[in-house]
Amino acid sequence: MNENTMHIGMIGLGKMGANMRARLINAGHQVTGYDRNPEVSDVANVAELVEKLPQPRIVWIMVPSGAPTDSVVAELKGVLSEGDLVIDGGNTRFSDDERHSAELSEKGIRFVDCGVSGGVWGLQNGYGLMAGGNDADIAELMPVFDALRPEGERSRSFVHVGDVGAGHYAKMVHNGIEYGMMQAYAEGYELLSAKSSIKDVRGTFAAWQEGTVVRSWLLDLLVEALKDDPELKDIAGYVEDSGEGRWTVEEAIANAVPAPVITAALFQRFASRQDDSPANKMVAALRQQFGGHAVKRPGE
Amino acid sequence: MNENTMHIGMIGLGKMGANMRARLINAGHQVTGYDRNPEVSDVANVAELVEKLPQPRIVWIMVPSGAPTDSVVAELKGVLSEGDLVIDGGNTRFSDDERHSAELSEKGIRFVDCGVSGGVWGLQNGYGLMAGGNDADIAELMPVFDALRPEGERSRSFVHVGDVGAGHYAKMVHNGIEYGMMQAYAEGYELLSAKSSIKDVRGTFAAWQEGTVVRSWLLDLLVEALKDDPELKDIAGYVEDSGEGRWTVEEAIANAVPAPVITAALFQRFASRQDDSPANKMVAALRQQFGGHAVKRPGE
Amino acid sequence: MNENTMHIGMIGLGKMGANMRARLINAGHQVTGYDRNPEVSDVANVAELVEKLPQPRIVWIMVPSGAPTDSVVAELKGVLSEGDLVIDGGNTRFSDDERHSAELSEKGIRFVDCGVSGGVWGLQNGYGLMAGGNDADIAELMPVFDALRPEGERSRSFVHVGDVGAGHYAKMVHNGIEYGMMQAYAEGYELLSAKSSIKDVRGTFAAWQEGTVVRSWLLDLLVEALKDDPELKDIAGYVEDSGEGRWTVEEAIANAVPAPVITAALFQRFASRQDDSPANKMVAALRQQFGGHAVKRPGE
Amino acid sequence: MNENTMHIGMIGLGKMGANMRARLINAGHQVTGYDRNPEVSDVANVAELVEKLPQPRIVWIMVPSGAPTDSVVAELKGVLSEGDLVIDGGNTRFSDDERHSAELSEKGIRFVDCGVSGGVWGLQNGYGLMAGGNDADIAELMPVFDALRPEGERSRSFVHVGDVGAGHYAKMVHNGIEYGMMQAYAEGYELLSAKSSIKDVRGTFAAWQEGTVVRSWLLDLLVEALKDDPELKDIAGYVEDSGEGRWTVEEAIANAVPAPVITAALFQRFASRQDDSPANKMVAALRQQFGGHAVKRPGE
Repeated sequence: MNENTMHIGMIGLGKMGANMRARLINAGHQVTGYDRNPEVSDVANVAELVEKLPQPRIVWIMVPSGAPTDSVVAELKGVLSEGDLVIDGGNTRFSDDERHSAELSEKGIRFVDCGVSGGVWGLQNGYGLMAGGNDADIAELMPVFDALRPEGERSRSFVHVGDVGAGHYAKMVHNGIEYGMMQAYAEGYELLSAKSSIKDVRGTFAAWQEGTVVRSWLLDLLVEALKDDPELKDIAGYVEDSGEGRWTVEEAIANAVPAPVITAALFQRFASRQDDSPANKMVAALRQQFGGHAVKRPGE
Repeated sequence: MNENTMHIGMIGLGKMGANMRARLINAGHQVTGYDRNPEVSDVANVAELVEKLPQPRIVWIMVPSGAPTDSVVAELKGVLSEGDLVIDGGNTRFSDDERHSAELSEKGIRFVDCGVSGGVWGLQNGYGLMAGGNDADIAELMPVFDALRPEGERSRSFVHVGDVGAGHYAKMVHNGIEYGMMQAYAEGYELLSAKSSIKDVRGTFAAWQEGTVVRSWLLDLLVEALKDDPELKDIAGYVEDSGEGRWTVEEAIANAVPAPVITAALFQRFASRQDDSPANKMVAALRQQFGGHAVKRPGE
Repeated sequence: MNENTMHIGMIGLGKMGANMRARLINAGHQVTGYDRNPEVSDVANVAELVEKLPQPRIVWIMVPSGAPTDSVVAELKGVLSEGDLVIDGGNTRFSDDERHSAELSEKGIRFVDCGVSGGVWGLQNGYGLMAGGNDADIAELMPVFDALRPEGERSRSFVHVGDVGAGHYAKMVHNGIEYGMMQAYAEGYELLSAKSSIKDVRGTFAAWQEGTVVRSWLLDLLVEALKDDPELKDIAGYVEDSGEGRWTVEEAIANAVPAPVITAALFQRFASRQDDSPANKMVAALRQQFGGHAVKRPGE
Repeated sequence: MNENTMHIGMIGLGKMGANMRARLINAGHQVTGYDRNPEVSDVANVAELVEKLPQPRIVWIMVPSGAPTDSVVAELKGVLSEGDLVIDGGNTRFSDDERHSAELSEKGIRFVDCGVSGGVWGLQNGYGLMAGGNDADIAELMPVFDALRPEGERSRSFVHVGDVGAGHYAKMVHNGIEYGMMQAYAEGYELLSAKSSIKDVRGTFAAWQEGTVVRSWLLDLLVEALKDDPELKDIAGYVEDSGEGRWTVEEAIANAVPAPVITAALFQRFASRQDDSPANKMVAALRQQFGGHAVKRPGE
């Protein structure tokens, strides 16, 4: 191992964690991974993971936000020692970071949060990284960050955003923007699809990939998505949300920032998951009351 | 007939026209009505209607906007004479009024447009009226307007908004506001319904009918709608629109007026009528592309 | 005092509290009021207020939400006794109610929350009331509630919404709806004002007061507002918000309820208070970057 | 000139037209340009331009949409002959194309519309092109299109969208999407700027340029815009619109397509240009009416 390679622990080997482990190993780092699923795990439990790491130990958490992350942080607090360093790379709400950091610091354990973007393509392309923590901790982790991010100029894929929590805050806003961009493309898709004079919807999006103002990686993915299923016949208009969009709007409210586009994209997702809309039922009921307008019955 | 009673023609005896005829007759006016449906019509055709009226003839049109109104105006142009007066009381787009007026004026026929609000309750309560036209024509029609509107102070239910087209413009904006108000109540209904700690959703709306800031006639109707079906189980969330909301947003655009609330209410109606949303499909497809997120298939 | 009159304490004698005290006294109740402002206060402090009340003591809090209410609740916990009853009639966030209730119950003090709507007109018209708490406590307070609400059928101005917190939840949603309704009227006002063919904007709103679908108390107030200042020349487009709108949207998010209209109204208020919009600056900057479009400099 | 080079006319040598002429010449084509500004024009007038071109003549229009384009089309109809071919590359409303095409076809002049994206960077990077017209006309123009678009796979920067008008329709939707994307980034910018814990707003955007889901060309421009003016102190939040966003929303309405994000971005621009908002004044006035809430006076 040369001086720039490190041996770290990785907790959570799902789609993101497993790929990040692979990318780190490809870069010459050593990674011991733990996952609840024994088939993908290198060790039997977190205690064993910690035993295998050199001191000061560095452990990267890559599990779902909320209770799963809370529980891993608590478990790590039990088995790590003063001077060890925990990085939370999941999509944790920024407001949890200070709590986790405080919890760990009771035992002198250091904490860094890191927003990670790139999805399933990160293994191949590298990940965009947004870190929060103190300067020394971030500096110590730079070999790991440099391995995870795309090659090339560091400032194009890595930023030290601020103190603990700032990395996840930036990632939250990143995802809010992502909601808005996806909805913008999606509205364009619906408009083009609704117009019979547009003979080649997929070809139109494809032709926007170079030269245009709207070219982007999301657009490339959109073209890919239309390749095999140009009318999206095999996909239902049902869209989950995993929290960052909600938190972005909550922060917009907390800071009195108007965010109509991100919020519209969020509400669109909520609506996508409703069998029927109670609000729409009410509007139909009101129209019937004042205008005698016919209503549809459920199932009609 | 005393000097304030009139004999007018009414074309279109649907829910609105028939009730208006009844209210006019109750007030002592004479109304000869024509409808395509011979069972409700007083005369066999428009020509016969015109023959029955004293000169100068006054004919109130109460048919659907667009082609049906265009066609009645054209027919009236053929059979009316110089000095006769046509009132369009339907929900015509204001921009059609100038065209209709110009068409009729070629034969010296006068034209007034009048927005009419009140729905099926107008027979009993009277209608709110917004008239567009010149002063003399409006003055001549005041006995008709006074019979249609609720008793009491004229300025609370009648307005001469401006020249031809202004009445329908005001009615269009009225309906745009109506869209926004209904959607506001509907969102409140959905919020209260979603919260298990609210034990009496209908009772809550009922208790807003007096004293509160949100009391209104629409609220009274909302309480009525919940009386027999407190969870709106028998109504699907499918909402038609008949044009005024679209035109209001088009005018917002034409005049660079931000109208986020009225527009949101309009889009909600569009969405209510979709089996599935192509835009939502696209967002689901994009999430699958970058994040490997599972999608639902149609029907799942 | 007959059996239905009560003697209660009222803490907070601002616009709302003072009017409510007056209305209660007009109805034959006895009210001892405390306010930080000695000029309007009946007693020197909360302890003195409590001494003057018969047992079990009933104290109505009518102070701003948040810290002021927290502090009054804490003070009352110190001076009240088992069996006493506190009502919070302010615009407290529903989530604070359970905390206040738990705090007081440590000493056996009972708690009821009550949303109060009606503004400065409540003294004359009566208030709409939404109460949360247990059946026995609510029943005990009915003489007070009946005095505060308009005369007539109780169910049209009073509702027992559910357990502690439910009253304020209903009031929060009420205010969210209020935001949406006001913005709907305001957009209509801007549309009518932008159109030169509308000769009488105020007269148009006035004519909607009877017979129309959009008639409401807010509309009556709107006509009143335009009476002396038909173009609102003396009012800046600067709109405060006091929390309920924000909480409504937060609850929409928490319950995955799309609330585009209420949210648009909230964001409009945020924007109204900005000297310049950072988001708009960015859009201008982007247009300059890709299109060479000229930008304005601040103050231009 | 080899068989793939052409000699065409270009009318309009502003920022777009001049750059396109340069790119065509760089590719070996011959371009005779006309502009009302004699300093940049190759010829004195349109008639002279037409004389200089080989038959069948090909003339590319690159002037502002609306009246300027209408007038150039009319002038060309006067001086061109049967078999000549006009391309409108400006931002014309798609609905004008059919009219222009019909006008020209009266003399046997052919017509193609072409949406062009890429802004001031197109000279260097190439333009994204969306063409509408018949197969033979498009085929004849391919050498011109190939020179204008970026090198590489044709399908990534050129599409034959459909018949006349379809090219501009696609460009209109492209610009609608652009509005939504810019507003999404702008809201993210405002959110990050509002949060004091974010120590490096520009660095955060810079770090999104590689690896992340939101990477795009617009993001690169955003980072560029923040380079010299990281807080956009020299730019006012005043945003023009040149039509495509309005038309996109009009088409959303015409086709009953919900387009909340694109519409929100459009309304944001409208609001950015208001000294004060009449709607906001009304909301402030209403709050004063019911709640006695203080209002600000203009200039306060």
